[in-house]
Amino acid sequence: MDGEDPDSPGDPATALRELGELGLIQRVRRRLPRPGPAVRVGLGDDTAVVEWPADRLLLLTTDTLVEDVHFRRATATLRDVGAKALAVNLSDIAAMGGEPRFALLALACPPDCGVADLDELYAGLLETAAPHGVDLIGGDTCTAPDRLVLTITLAGAADGPPLTRGGARPGDAILVTGTLGGSAAGLATLERPPAGVPAGALAELARAHRRPTPRVAEGRAIRATGGATAMIDLSDGLATDLGHIAAESRVGARVRLASLPVSDATRAAARALREEAWTWAVSGGEDYELLFTAAPDRADALAARVTAETGTRVTRIGEVRPAGEGVVFLDEAGQPVAVRPGFEHFK
Amino acid sequence: MDGEDPDSPGDPATALRELGELGLIQRVRRRLPRPGPAVRVGLGDDTAVVEWPADRLLLLTTDTLVEDVHFRRATATLRDVGAKALAVNLSDIAAMGGEPRFALLALACPPDCGVADLDELYAGLLETAAPHGVDLIGGDTCTAPDRLVLTITLAGAADGPPLTRGGARPGDAILVTGTLGGSAAGLATLERPPAGVPAGALAELARAHRRPTPRVAEGRAIRATGGATAMIDLSDGLATDLGHIAAESRVGARVRLASLPVSDATRAAARALREEAWTWAVSGGEDYELLFTAAPDRADALAARVTAETGTRVTRIGEVRPAGEGVVFLDEAGQPVAVRPGFEHFK
Repeated sequence: MDGEDPDSPGDPATALRELGELGLIQRVRRRLPRPGPAVRVGLGDDTAVVEWPADRLLLLTTDTLVEDVHFRRATATLRDVGAKALAVNLSDIAAMGGEPRFALLALACPPDCGVADLDELYAGLLETAAPHGVDLIGGDTCTAPDRLVLTITLAGAADGPPLTRGGARPGDAILVTGTLGGSAAGLATLERPPAGVPAGALAELARAHRRPTPRVAEGRAIRATGGATAMIDLSDGLATDLGHIAAESRVGARVRLASLPVSDATRAAARALREEAWTWAVSGGEDYELLFTAAPDRADALAARVTAETGTRVTRIGEVRPAGEGVVFLDEAGQPVAVRPGFEHFK
Repeated sequence: MDGEDPDSPGDPATALRELGELGLIQRVRRRLPRPGPAVRVGLGDDTAVVEWPADRLLLLTTDTLVEDVHFRRATATLRDVGAKALAVNLSDIAAMGGEPRFALLALACPPDCGVADLDELYAGLLETAAPHGVDLIGGDTCTAPDRLVLTITLAGAADGPPLTRGGARPGDAILVTGTLGGSAAGLATLERPPAGVPAGALAELARAHRRPTPRVAEGRAIRATGGATAMIDLSDGLATDLGHIAAESRVGARVRLASLPVSDATRAAARALREEAWTWAVSGGEDYELLFTAAPDRADALAARVTAETGTRVTRIGEVRPAGEGVVFLDEAGQPVAVRPGFEHFK
């Protein structure tokens, strides 16, 4: 797929645990035949882009949620799960600046699952679909012996060339929508309810974890400015997802921890649990905010315009650097700090 | 979705096991908001059809395969599984007379899975995609604690109005491509290898089970005749899938068992295992042949034309009847026989 990829990683005798999710994707990409001319963005991005018909772009994305891997019944209702399953796909379409349109749900489910539970799951999905004008048009239902497995596929439209992970240039500003670390703070406080954090803050954090807001309008607004050079949604955490932009754009990045937008509720939870809020913001994942890059002289105007159109804050958190510098996070003294990588499946 | 559906079946307190797959689908359809104007075929069919853009039709279908539900490592290699996962989706597009184009694979996999096994899975998928010109454009990979779960989504095109399950009229002929019962015979002989069946026949049956041939060219040829009134692919078995046409078309059906196309290999396996070949043909499922209906005076010419274009036999097996007569299978004496229903998930 990409002639400059390194050789297929992984010895065939190794287990997936050693190769990791990213190693597997790289391995498959190397083995893929050359895609047809209609394929504009293929395997390796969260959202595929094809010309369909000749002069239009069709976006397709799919995501699986596995019980006890992506969610636990102890910390989320099935209504939350249905909502989140669609939200993570909406977020993938948002990261292309696309317009979500049609959803399919493939549901594998234990036979002893209650009908009332499934009603809740569909209700969560449909109440998330409605404000975006997304139709649930099909799917599949089948038996899973052990646990719920949901796969949603979402089709969307784009009215211009795709905004991918691959366009960042050294010197570009790095920006992010909303706040970071709220989902990780929500999970931590659901698992270990802390004393001394206001109930309203705990509810806000639980909601950030259970009901992330896909930034669909923000993605379209960012794209419409014409000034963004690369974009991705924050599903695996800032460190990992910025790493994806760096890898696909063949650049490095420098982020100032002091610039990261972190909510008061997240800070309060971090204090109460003796955690560092910036660790959640950098490595927590599942915030489903949009991370994007733009030319430095246009970044502030672009951010202001997106905020004016959507009401969502946009924060400049760092700059794109040459590839040789790697992806670096700097503390208040300007010193690089070691960051925990975000979530990677199989590892 | 359909104002004439019966009331939502299933008490919320019941388990999915009691409601069954079809009950669940009916229940969800009743709760779905009115779909947008672009949705031509929505939830309830194997393949959704949307207008995209205004004057074109986009087909979308998704199917999940779960290890130890849809396949077992004892009777199929992962290369077979990858091939079959795409084939069942190709078959859904074929049943609309559509042209398959783009595939996404969402793969949930235990971390101890070997990389060589996954290479085989992708190889099977890609070797099935290639002859149909299908591009693998994206997907998702994640951890599954217990077993492999594959979900493929396939997008396709159609160059005219969709051919659904809903157009059969009393008096229409019922036709089927290829032969029936081969997949069930293949599974039975893999599980209980019989004495006295030629090795070539056993290999043919094993292949029918492991590597079903999606009837993509046949589906397009059937549709191109303009004479077919309804169509479905045979995934759950003739009895169940003809039942779907009957339900959606609000008709009955009469099928002569003596007319069913059954291969010599299937007959030999049935004799050796003391089974009845017609039971496999009617209730076995997973043949992935196309079942369709056509006006009686056009049916034979239509069948001859499809065979001439594709080399695949087409057999007239019965006729559509008024709804009140139900779906009936007749023995050689013209007497109705009791048939085992095909596979239904959760029950």
